[in-house]
Amino acid sequence: MGNDALTTERGRHTYEEITSQPEVWAQTLTEAHQKLDEVRAFLAQGMDDALFIGCGSTYYLALAAASLLQRLAGWRARGLPSSELWFYPEAVLGPARRPLLVAVSRSGTTTETLRAMEAFKAHGGSDVAVVTCYPDTPMAQVAQVVLSAPAAQEKSIAQTRSFASMYVLTQVLAGLAAGDDAYLAQLDRLPDAGRALLDNYSDLAERLGSDLGIDRAFFLGSGIYYGLACETMLKMKEMSLTYAEAFHFLEFRHGPKSMVNESTLVIGMVSDSAREHEVAVLREMRGLGARVLAIAEEGTAEELGGADFVVTLNSGLPETARGVLYLPLLQLMAYHRSMAKELDPDRPRNLDLVVHL
Amino acid sequence: MGNDALTTERGRHTYEEITSQPEVWAQTLTEAHQKLDEVRAFLAQGMDDALFIGCGSTYYLALAAASLLQRLAGWRARGLPSSELWFYPEAVLGPARRPLLVAVSRSGTTTETLRAMEAFKAHGGSDVAVVTCYPDTPMAQVAQVVLSAPAAQEKSIAQTRSFASMYVLTQVLAGLAAGDDAYLAQLDRLPDAGRALLDNYSDLAERLGSDLGIDRAFFLGSGIYYGLACETMLKMKEMSLTYAEAFHFLEFRHGPKSMVNESTLVIGMVSDSAREHEVAVLREMRGLGARVLAIAEEGTAEELGGADFVVTLNSGLPETARGVLYLPLLQLMAYHRSMAKELDPDRPRNLDLVVHL
Repeated sequence: MGNDALTTERGRHTYEEITSQPEVWAQTLTEAHQKLDEVRAFLAQGMDDALFIGCGSTYYLALAAASLLQRLAGWRARGLPSSELWFYPEAVLGPARRPLLVAVSRSGTTTETLRAMEAFKAHGGSDVAVVTCYPDTPMAQVAQVVLSAPAAQEKSIAQTRSFASMYVLTQVLAGLAAGDDAYLAQLDRLPDAGRALLDNYSDLAERLGSDLGIDRAFFLGSGIYYGLACETMLKMKEMSLTYAEAFHFLEFRHGPKSMVNESTLVIGMVSDSAREHEVAVLREMRGLGARVLAIAEEGTAEELGGADFVVTLNSGLPETARGVLYLPLLQLMAYHRSMAKELDPDRPRNLDLVVHL
Repeated sequence: MGNDALTTERGRHTYEEITSQPEVWAQTLTEAHQKLDEVRAFLAQGMDDALFIGCGSTYYLALAAASLLQRLAGWRARGLPSSELWFYPEAVLGPARRPLLVAVSRSGTTTETLRAMEAFKAHGGSDVAVVTCYPDTPMAQVAQVVLSAPAAQEKSIAQTRSFASMYVLTQVLAGLAAGDDAYLAQLDRLPDAGRALLDNYSDLAERLGSDLGIDRAFFLGSGIYYGLACETMLKMKEMSLTYAEAFHFLEFRHGPKSMVNESTLVIGMVSDSAREHEVAVLREMRGLGARVLAIAEEGTAEELGGADFVVTLNSGLPETARGVLYLPLLQLMAYHRSMAKELDPDRPRNLDLVVHL
């Protein structure tokens, strides 16, 4: 089979991009290691305030990264859609504050993010970092610091390894901001842990993804995992056109749980810090008839709310370091659901590779 | 018909609570006027940083209020679920910052919000304001300032007039923080404008709500309207068990629009500031087959993206003052959809009046 045939095989790119992640994370970390001194020097200006922006997947990455930076380094950080900074720069920035702007863009060419960067500079902002898969774009050229993951570039529209690899880059950024060398060293264990997960649980991802008795999926995560829950939700939606939503764990009780029924799958990204309360939500949703998939560092089905399906990460890493491990199996589940519905995960309905306005 | 009969009539409370809003807003503003000096003195301590918390509807209110305070007064403000502050106080607050905490709770008894307030105090926070419908709860008693809307108390589970009235209270708070007396005076025009809207468009709300050819609804809003889009989305979901989601306008293009089909209703809360770009999204969604309802201060269907349905507010108020006007008709639409589906909007499936853990 020649390359031309490969590129037209349904779902081929997405599958390859998801399953190649552990190697791509390793390459991304190797590349990032070469920039540690440069980024450290940049951060040594004494910043403690950051605004992460992005669109779609990278907006969710902005949420996840801001939360992680705040948690690890004590910075004040928030994630926003690029359009919010573009449309309302005064309201976002305030009269006197000029945070470090971290613009996240797979392509480096997303119009809204470029406009937001211009608005930031027009309102007196100067410090800009870019996280991207393409280090040579105009977006990267206006940044003081560029963290890039060229090995993670993709042919598919839905971001999978690009999201995960850019998230790893923001982990490096947060570790540097915190001055936490032990944390940075822990990240090197992610590729092996990711490989083990794909080895052990790909069958489960295929089984759940192929189960068309499920017709709605809810992704729950708190704290630093909320943005990751949003992103895996978006994958399910984009690739498989499935009713999918993401919530902070306890928020799900305040209204949204009304949508739970017998054909519901609830996916819980269980943390360590709030585990007891998160597991209580999973148990309650099971009581309402949902099937439950719990992903946690460790634990039995009974310890995880009576979950129907359990993925244990067994990474040995603290919750702040292991976030990216929650992604690949859920991306794979979305891929298999897309295939089972006879859609093409490489080319989701209505969507374009990059949104240019 | 005696009172007992009334209280068991399906949807009776919700309908009465939605349609009584203009009068209840007026009572709420009258009550708030009596506290202006007290709140002004409290704010005169020189704060410029706020954290709004809530659960479910009041989390969405926290988002809306934080954005408004930031826009009007230049404060740095953010809205978060109460559980995030409860679980991760160090990450939310940072090592040195103690913002004004604004806890929003209809009942004043929500467990997560009480726990979050305790966490805030345990981490050195002292300045607390409460926005509620019940001014005499334990939650209110630990606050320095209480803004309350007792006239907005409800029998229904889904918040409608309580949400809107508490939002008006946060408008008062933001106006005071900005020292903007003209803005505060503008708020007094909201009840009349709300009454006119209900008079002019209740039929449209009933027609759209009763149209069961619609099976998914997307609520779009940017800037200060995003939290309001979230809340009207939640109403649709809770009352009518309909697939409903909320997005920032331009975010909808980055993935979620893949869910648009011929049975989709897209509801756009059009602003003035970003109107051109918001209208472009509505036009695109119409091109993908959705029906579109545009709500804007003014404009024709053609000027509003070729919208199928148009509500013009004609309030004469700036976008920062008129936000609450976007709510009643969408609440009413959710009510009618619930009735058309033979559900009871007063008693949504799976939900409780207050979530006590």
